[in-house]
Amino acid sequence: MLQRARLKTVLNRHFQAILEKNWSEKKFLCIGLDSDISKLPKGTTQLSFNQAIIEATHDLVAAFKPNVAFYESQGSSGFEALKKTIEFILETAPSTLIVLDAKRADIGNTSASYAKAAFEELKADCVTLNPYLGQEAIQPFLDYKNKGSFILCRTSNPGAKEFQDLKVDGEPLYLRVAKQVATQWNTNKNCGLVVGATYPEELKTIRKAAPELPFLVPGVGSQGGDLKQVLEFGRNSAGNGLLINLSRSILFASSGPDFAESARKEILKTTQLI
Amino acid sequence: MLQRARLKTVLNRHFQAILEKNWSEKKFLCIGLDSDISKLPKGTTQLSFNQAIIEATHDLVAAFKPNVAFYESQGSSGFEALKKTIEFILETAPSTLIVLDAKRADIGNTSASYAKAAFEELKADCVTLNPYLGQEAIQPFLDYKNKGSFILCRTSNPGAKEFQDLKVDGEPLYLRVAKQVATQWNTNKNCGLVVGATYPEELKTIRKAAPELPFLVPGVGSQGGDLKQVLEFGRNSAGNGLLINLSRSILFASSGPDFAESARKEILKTTQLI
Repeated sequence: MLQRARLKTVLNRHFQAILEKNWSEKKFLCIGLDSDISKLPKGTTQLSFNQAIIEATHDLVAAFKPNVAFYESQGSSGFEALKKTIEFILETAPSTLIVLDAKRADIGNTSASYAKAAFEELKADCVTLNPYLGQEAIQPFLDYKNKGSFILCRTSNPGAKEFQDLKVDGEPLYLRVAKQVATQWNTNKNCGLVVGATYPEELKTIRKAAPELPFLVPGVGSQGGDLKQVLEFGRNSAGNGLLINLSRSILFASSGPDFAESARKEILKTTQLI
Repeated sequence: MLQRARLKTVLNRHFQAILEKNWSEKKFLCIGLDSDISKLPKGTTQLSFNQAIIEATHDLVAAFKPNVAFYESQGSSGFEALKKTIEFILETAPSTLIVLDAKRADIGNTSASYAKAAFEELKADCVTLNPYLGQEAIQPFLDYKNKGSFILCRTSNPGAKEFQDLKVDGEPLYLRVAKQVATQWNTNKNCGLVVGATYPEELKTIRKAAPELPFLVPGVGSQGGDLKQVLEFGRNSAGNGLLINLSRSILFASSGPDFAESARKEILKTTQLI
């Protein structure tokens, strides 16, 4: 359990300050803690696995991004492992950003409960959100001024185009989402976008529409996105603005007892490419 | 804990059969178990409150719909209360449908974990999903053939129009969603749509585009949707096809110790209007 004084510090963490600090140290990578229980090395639990990964890599990365799905599927004990993972990051690697990959969105009073879950119960710095219900629905998240909300814009999956590429007023829906977030939703300067690395052309267009927003970019690694193109098309004018996420290719670089060491080696390799 | 034989029965529950049975008994109402801890009557917990509501109303309604947000915000103990609430419905009111209001969607392997959480860990019969990532992303939910997926189409919140009403090829996005779900996603005959009662004209248009899909209709009650219009515009050709959700107006009909009795009275009142 976090001490009371410590908890206050935690709630005062400002996502943008943590991001800027990491970017100033040329750290752009984010490790997705998609700790699928069926893939964990023998003898580890979700929590001990995450702790080993975090200890082995935190000095090299800007952020950790646990995805709620992999914990929720384990019931209340999974939820507890998620909570303790975040507490471990706050204790061990407090200069690393914590992004809760939740892809939530609901109507007003319900979104307020989800926001409370993400920012107060789990103590994440940022959350990922789905735009389909509009700004009004997810305003309760945006009202946490020092917490960040990354809105799904163009996702990295093959089926993303079914709705996201539909043309509205001559431009794809994902671009409308980017523009609304950049010009309307960002009053508290705490919005970002999720833009898949698997669609570099789209990344370029979206950066043009949202020149200053931080982008969370999944899809490099196992999903095949190209790191060089992400860096070329995704940076903002200051040469920053990116959190590039890697999950499976890091977490499961080795399935043996050297999994944490292998994860570090993989992250180092990617860091050198940047 | 459910016994092993019982658990097997639970996993074999078919949402459509439960729905049809309820419709044949003229039951169309669904109680949203939005059991916000700050609104619970003195001396109750989320679980004891839910149990009292379920006992007092289950013979009158077709479904219960717990919204995950109100449990997740209480951490692992909230998650446990949610799980035990569902187990209580399975034990006490097994002919009632259990809809997990989760509004989930993620990419493939992550959606599979969410589906496992909803259908195996929590043992819900149905789940609500967000369409923004496309069919491919949420196929892992649809692959559970005897479990239902209600896809957000036109939501009941004031800000829904920001994206859902945008015109694509001359028709609103929500209508495209309805058509895709009705004609492409429904291979396993286990899709439904979420259509807010607060937009009766849209409900009419959507029923035309998806003549046979079950509709989950929130927004009657506290949100101001008109029950008569929902019945007029929302039914399918067989005169069924509806799950009309009521939450706050039922749960918090009284804040005193008579809350369960008051909930029953409110449900009876609405039933008589139908």
